[in-house]
Amino acid sequence: MKAEIITIGDEILIGQIVDTNSAWMAEELNKIGVSVAQITSISDTPVHLVNALDDAGLRADVILITGGLGPTKDDRTKKVLAEYFNSTLVMHHPTLDHISSFFKRRGLGVNQLNSDQALVPECCEVLSNPVGTAPGMWFDHNEKIFVSMPGVPFEMKEIMQASVLPRLKSKNGNGFIVHKTVHTIGIPESILAEKLEDWENALPEFIHLAYLPNPGQIRLRFSAFGIDETYLKKAIEAEIVKLKEIIPDAIFGYGNDTLAGVVGKLLIDKKATVAAAESCTGGQIAHSITSVPGCSGWFKGSVVAYANDMKSGVLKVSADDIEKHGAVSETVVMQMAEGVRKLTNADYSLATSGIAGPDGGTADKPVGTVWIAVATPDKTFAQKYTFSNNRERNIIRSAQTALNMLREVLEKGIFKKN
Amino acid sequence: MKAEIITIGDEILIGQIVDTNSAWMAEELNKIGVSVAQITSISDTPVHLVNALDDAGLRADVILITGGLGPTKDDRTKKVLAEYFNSTLVMHHPTLDHISSFFKRRGLGVNQLNSDQALVPECCEVLSNPVGTAPGMWFDHNEKIFVSMPGVPFEMKEIMQASVLPRLKSKNGNGFIVHKTVHTIGIPESILAEKLEDWENALPEFIHLAYLPNPGQIRLRFSAFGIDETYLKKAIEAEIVKLKEIIPDAIFGYGNDTLAGVVGKLLIDKKATVAAAESCTGGQIAHSITSVPGCSGWFKGSVVAYANDMKSGVLKVSADDIEKHGAVSETVVMQMAEGVRKLTNADYSLATSGIAGPDGGTADKPVGTVWIAVATPDKTFAQKYTFSNNRERNIIRSAQTALNMLREVLEKGIFKKN
Repeated sequence: MKAEIITIGDEILIGQIVDTNSAWMAEELNKIGVSVAQITSISDTPVHLVNALDDAGLRADVILITGGLGPTKDDRTKKVLAEYFNSTLVMHHPTLDHISSFFKRRGLGVNQLNSDQALVPECCEVLSNPVGTAPGMWFDHNEKIFVSMPGVPFEMKEIMQASVLPRLKSKNGNGFIVHKTVHTIGIPESILAEKLEDWENALPEFIHLAYLPNPGQIRLRFSAFGIDETYLKKAIEAEIVKLKEIIPDAIFGYGNDTLAGVVGKLLIDKKATVAAAESCTGGQIAHSITSVPGCSGWFKGSVVAYANDMKSGVLKVSADDIEKHGAVSETVVMQMAEGVRKLTNADYSLATSGIAGPDGGTADKPVGTVWIAVATPDKTFAQKYTFSNNRERNIIRSAQTALNMLREVLEKGIFKKN
Repeated sequence: MKAEIITIGDEILIGQIVDTNSAWMAEELNKIGVSVAQITSISDTPVHLVNALDDAGLRADVILITGGLGPTKDDRTKKVLAEYFNSTLVMHHPTLDHISSFFKRRGLGVNQLNSDQALVPECCEVLSNPVGTAPGMWFDHNEKIFVSMPGVPFEMKEIMQASVLPRLKSKNGNGFIVHKTVHTIGIPESILAEKLEDWENALPEFIHLAYLPNPGQIRLRFSAFGIDETYLKKAIEAEIVKLKEIIPDAIFGYGNDTLAGVVGKLLIDKKATVAAAESCTGGQIAHSITSVPGCSGWFKGSVVAYANDMKSGVLKVSADDIEKHGAVSETVVMQMAEGVRKLTNADYSLATSGIAGPDGGTADKPVGTVWIAVATPDKTFAQKYTFSNNRERNIIRSAQTALNMLREVLEKGIFKKN
């Protein structure tokens, strides 16, 4: 079964929003063995939608449409769908009741714009939307399935999970795509490709490998196609065993693993805790860690010490050393790590101090210069890195590199300077 | 002049990455009066690319292609482009020199995969890529322009800004699209639409309005089409004046303004500083603030006090009160705000304590319960909010709401409980 995704709305075409819905939908469809042939973003005009529906219907069995169902004037999708399927809009009373109670719970009345959201093409099957007011709509048309859903991410996800994915799964026959992703850190793409060349050339025909670069990380994605899901999974696992022998240190996780999550597991094994003192990363380390559910068991907290007086006042960094060596220096970052470790009674700690940019660089310490420290119960390690001139990338890479330094220390007991 | 964007790569179609390139490109193209008719994500297979190029050529004058140019085996785009334009791949020596020096600076040699990146279709004009190894390629073909660029975001952006956008701008004749976005906070979409209905119906024909919801925010985007850029801008400004009279308190900014940036400007005006004490937001307030360039002038820092002993040890919250009222309570959040204000010598401070989910809720304090406090030199305000059951949304909404409370206090001197 092949699917296509059509997203409707000028906001994507003018670059006002990034289309995150399609990535989520594609991932969920792949999980149930439905591959996505194309993702198309179009404007909210009738002629464009009709053309896109025609084209997608030629290539795919299932066409999932998001967006264009809001209560406001910029949304015309429902009328176009009714015409496309030779139907008329009718009031769907269960939806109207749901909308009324939805607003009532919030102490609000229903206005005309809201009640119009209960109008649906007569030929569709309504997919209820428990978390919003615009319902999903399922159309069976010329042996194809068309589904229209709201563009608000959490509403779309609710309808997909409750209605669309289970139905598609039951309709889809045999045939599986199995994906597995291996996360690597610390080896640039072309060098990694060279190291892996022989192994990669020897991969079985039915396994496809892709390199997906992120700032500082390369993900290796295996895709295996066939009808025996268990066999496909085993074949990928066998290749991962070989891969591990080639790049033993660079692999930190698999699938949905994150660096912070992996660090968390290592800390749990040691019954240990961590804290952070962040200057240039500005809360990014804390943010990465607190995205891991259950992190309260091993994360004490972070002191985002942006101002120098906070470094000395809260973290007890020597004001003389800040004056003498600058805030971006080995001695300051080590004192930050030791200071926050003491302050929070954590077993381990991380600290960052650097020049994220765009301003603040000097000849001596250009933009991208970052000192990172890890303090352990026995010893404090610090290392200088030179990243890029892009603020956002520098913040992410610094936070990642800090977490990876801690990972190495937790796994091996030492940090290997490169 | 109309453009289309084609992104190549299975990683988008399997949902492994979100397509952020297209949003950026669309925004930049719109700025120079080039509208985007469609964005299409396709797999890295020759037949699909050829079909997509054919289709896009029927609708648009300019076709911008990203992705499929990496050094590794999963990228075949260049060969397909050479065939599509009846050309052959030849070595481009300036690019080869650039690649050699690129690796030399990093102390590395050039392998075969890298030097192959200097092969380009003979008929193209090479667009140099100073920040990477895969060059851009410009094709003039049947009165249409096709441009191929790497998919790595900062490489694509560099080639767009240095080469593609200036050329397209000089080729594009008259005709402007002017966009302006107004950011609102605190009014749900359907209620906002009702308040604005009469004004919206009276908008001039050439101005289009769209509602773009974000968690807790609605952005109103004006788009005006015509040939006199100045006139279009004035017409939009005149409508914004009317809009402000209808919803004076809900508007917090325009265009690329962010809530944190607006708060920063207000603090600079008052020559004041802010700090934060974050529990459930886990560094999100610090992260929002440190995304504002120059924030070091008004941001002291943040204490991400995830563990209770950090709330009492660092922020001096009474351990008895945590025991008696729980960490998610009015008294604790007020003590957190006051504690961090004192600790950092900031003029103002924010604090959050809540249950972000997915676990940790009780009948009394369900997931989504968040207490937020603002401390000022004179007084501390606290307010309880009930958000959703989605962890990620709760974190973002809590951080936003905290910043908006501070905005109100800074603008009006008081916080108006709702």
